[in-house]
Amino acid sequence: MTRTRAESPHTPAPARRHGRVLEQAIFDAVIEQLEKFGYAKLTMDSVAAAAHTGKATLYRRWADKDELILDAFYNALPSPVAIPLRGVLRTDLATVLRSLRDAFDATRGAAFQIVKSENGPKAAMVHTMVKERVTDPCKKLLLGILRDGVERGEVRADAVTPLVANVGSAMMIYHSLTEGPVSDDMINDVIEGVLLPLVSPRPSA
Amino acid sequence: MTRTRAESPHTPAPARRHGRVLEQAIFDAVIEQLEKFGYAKLTMDSVAAAAHTGKATLYRRWADKDELILDAFYNALPSPVAIPLRGVLRTDLATVLRSLRDAFDATRGAAFQIVKSENGPKAAMVHTMVKERVTDPCKKLLLGILRDGVERGEVRADAVTPLVANVGSAMMIYHSLTEGPVSDDMINDVIEGVLLPLVSPRPSA
Repeated sequence: MTRTRAESPHTPAPARRHGRVLEQAIFDAVIEQLEKFGYAKLTMDSVAAAAHTGKATLYRRWADKDELILDAFYNALPSPVAIPLRGVLRTDLATVLRSLRDAFDATRGAAFQIVKSENGPKAAMVHTMVKERVTDPCKKLLLGILRDGVERGEVRADAVTPLVANVGSAMMIYHSLTEGPVSDDMINDVIEGVLLPLVSPRPSA
Repeated sequence: MTRTRAESPHTPAPARRHGRVLEQAIFDAVIEQLEKFGYAKLTMDSVAAAAHTGKATLYRRWADKDELILDAFYNALPSPVAIPLRGVLRTDLATVLRSLRDAFDATRGAAFQIVKSENGPKAAMVHTMVKERVTDPCKKLLLGILRDGVERGEVRADAVTPLVANVGSAMMIYHSLTEGPVSDDMINDVIEGVLLPLVSPRPSA
């Protein structure tokens, strides 16, 4: 499946009428229709109608609804590499975890509708996308934050592991599955009550 | 909704023909049919046929398929209070986390079929059941293990918090969602690489 990455929302809008605005309206319609009506009922027609454009406009860019859905998710999920870091451990941890929480909040309803539509290739598509676009980059970013913390004396060198890097993300997902929405206070509690005690240098070490 | 707790699988088998054996066959049929065919297609008839019994037998005990499904889940989910503890921190953590992993492995396919069948009351039923039967008791059990560890000098007193008690469970669920099945080695890695460093007393503290 080819995706038109050159036309991603981060490139300048083309000169065509409504370029970026129309694109965003199409993506918003996809996510909204997935959440409301589910994967099976989403069609190129229904998206075109909701975005006040023609079906031909959609087909000029996307071969089928799966390509369109993938691009809509890529649009809704912020790229973790674009997250601004400050070089302060607790601040940077909070920034990344809040960004991860926002990405899940923005897309989990729509993603769940795809996963539940069938157990086969579509569910795998969502799984791969979330892994490639969200969880793997977040793990790398958090590992980098821990590594930088070692240089500043904020992190034990032996705490820089993929497992430790996943603790914050895991706590957030678990909380959202068992308790409900993840607040900023919850993220701060995880940082102060779990992550910092886990990675901080030991007094006599 | 009333459930016949007095007839749960942990009570002695009644004198009726096939008592416990028939009950287990019925519960197994429910979980298997949920996994294979989904919530909508499971009927009292289909379960009766698979368990080689009559529909009347089912209706004598369960008013409808939801009552039957709930009992089948309660049967498949081991009660955390029955988990044997040894009084050794890493051993007890491993025992509880393996039990939690087994409970999810045994029921997640069937539970997912219910959740995806509709977003309303049935999904809430599964959510409540997993919370009451699995995640909340596990948190209490893990808190108790940490508290016991404080008395033996294996755990810092300020590490005995609900958040810390959830770290192991959260890591397992996150791993199973993003990577796949949780092995015993994975559980040991979480204990050695995350939980023990997080809760152990600090050298100079």
